[in-house]
Amino acid sequence: MRKQITGFSNPTVKYLRSLRDKKHRKRSGQFLVEGLRLLEDARESGHLPRQVVMAENRDAHPLIDRLEADVIAAGGEIIETTPDILTKITGKSNAQSVVGVFDEWDTGLDQLDRDAAPIWLVAQALRDPGNLGTMLRTGDAVGAGGLILIDDCADPFSAEAVRASMGAVFTQSLAQARWDEFTAWLRSGSGQLVAASLRDAVPYRGAPYAAPCFILVGNESQGLPESYEAECDLRVTMPMRGRADSLNAAVAGAVLAYEVLAGLEKS
Amino acid sequence: MRKQITGFSNPTVKYLRSLRDKKHRKRSGQFLVEGLRLLEDARESGHLPRQVVMAENRDAHPLIDRLEADVIAAGGEIIETTPDILTKITGKSNAQSVVGVFDEWDTGLDQLDRDAAPIWLVAQALRDPGNLGTMLRTGDAVGAGGLILIDDCADPFSAEAVRASMGAVFTQSLAQARWDEFTAWLRSGSGQLVAASLRDAVPYRGAPYAAPCFILVGNESQGLPESYEAECDLRVTMPMRGRADSLNAAVAGAVLAYEVLAGLEKS
Repeated sequence: MRKQITGFSNPTVKYLRSLRDKKHRKRSGQFLVEGLRLLEDARESGHLPRQVVMAENRDAHPLIDRLEADVIAAGGEIIETTPDILTKITGKSNAQSVVGVFDEWDTGLDQLDRDAAPIWLVAQALRDPGNLGTMLRTGDAVGAGGLILIDDCADPFSAEAVRASMGAVFTQSLAQARWDEFTAWLRSGSGQLVAASLRDAVPYRGAPYAAPCFILVGNESQGLPESYEAECDLRVTMPMRGRADSLNAAVAGAVLAYEVLAGLEKS
Repeated sequence: MRKQITGFSNPTVKYLRSLRDKKHRKRSGQFLVEGLRLLEDARESGHLPRQVVMAENRDAHPLIDRLEADVIAAGGEIIETTPDILTKITGKSNAQSVVGVFDEWDTGLDQLDRDAAPIWLVAQALRDPGNLGTMLRTGDAVGAGGLILIDDCADPFSAEAVRASMGAVFTQSLAQARWDEFTAWLRSGSGQLVAASLRDAVPYRGAPYAAPCFILVGNESQGLPESYEAECDLRVTMPMRGRADSLNAAVAGAVLAYEVLAGLEKS
């Protein structure tokens, strides 16, 4: 179906705009994805938006044509509007000319198949959506199965997380759980839980990693709670040659993930 | 010297607030640092603010007392004001209770001593101040000498870059240069220029890194220009097991920097 929206007070405009807020996303179970590149990543990964909103004056593009056709074939909706209304929806003065509305999906642990990949990333109380998206992107690069979000993390469906993931939000599995749910699930099957730590740890380089390896990264300012570190099967240290004793959370996860990848491939 | 400011229209308030803008920072040569932790990092690294602004109703803290004493001994100024005015200065509703005003320093290449460290990070057209600060933080962790910013990068003295650096802006050397200035400087002495690349590259793992090793990272969306890659002494590839062919810039720099560190220590 196609429709046009020309009024700022149209309820659809109000609804789409509300999806910038986590509270409204959770209530509606939908989220926004901005820009043709991300929409194309989604389409290639089998995710189609329910609605596509675009400016009337957009440049023609074969990828937009294909996206439109696929969305309409799937029973979705194409909405044409003015650049000003598009700006109002996204809150960006330089609004990308295409926005998609997607249904969020189930992020229960039971959706995960731990044997589908040798590496899984696990983030605890990760507050920065940019870090969260960057971890998804890194997970894609190292061939991880997905990202498991423990305790209160940033919303993986926020615009910033989706953008930073560079489309990996559509290819990496995603789960959200409390710590005790996670550990119960983890211990119900095979899996090695690994974290960077300063306590009772071995050098991260060449450590005995084993698949499926779950790489646990802690909160940006607090790090991991001591009891979470104690639950790990392997604690590793990374060189810290300067004043600080920690790395950015997404960086620490990535350096460790690449080391695990190298270790698993050698063994 | 100590003074009190109670009026929003005080010219000092206006001036301090203006330092949130890059344009005004460049004109005045000063920048803001928010929060006691960063101010303490600065002090320990030998950098004292010209002025310290704090809320009248702050909690007492021995580190604040020491900072105050040091700033006054150095001829600086302590400004007490209201929480509302502090919020106006920083633009944050939850303003940290202490803000320092620092002089920017010389970021010419001739300030760098390339033999002072085995690793240097080099970023080209890095636009995200968070990535820039994260690279400074990583540089500190791997024992790098500093960060060299090529072409038009984000401002290392922006609040976001300073915050993401976790204080490393005060410990890592910092230089800014155009590409041709940088290559002329680089080739005037010893130094291996290394970049991650898909062209004519060897595996990053175990590649023949040599100190001083300059790790070059390209712009977030464009990557490195081909001619910049061609200038490198060593091009390395990192595994990309997923859909994407690149990592976040700060992540790529960090994974490479840790590999270089391991390689240099083995040799």
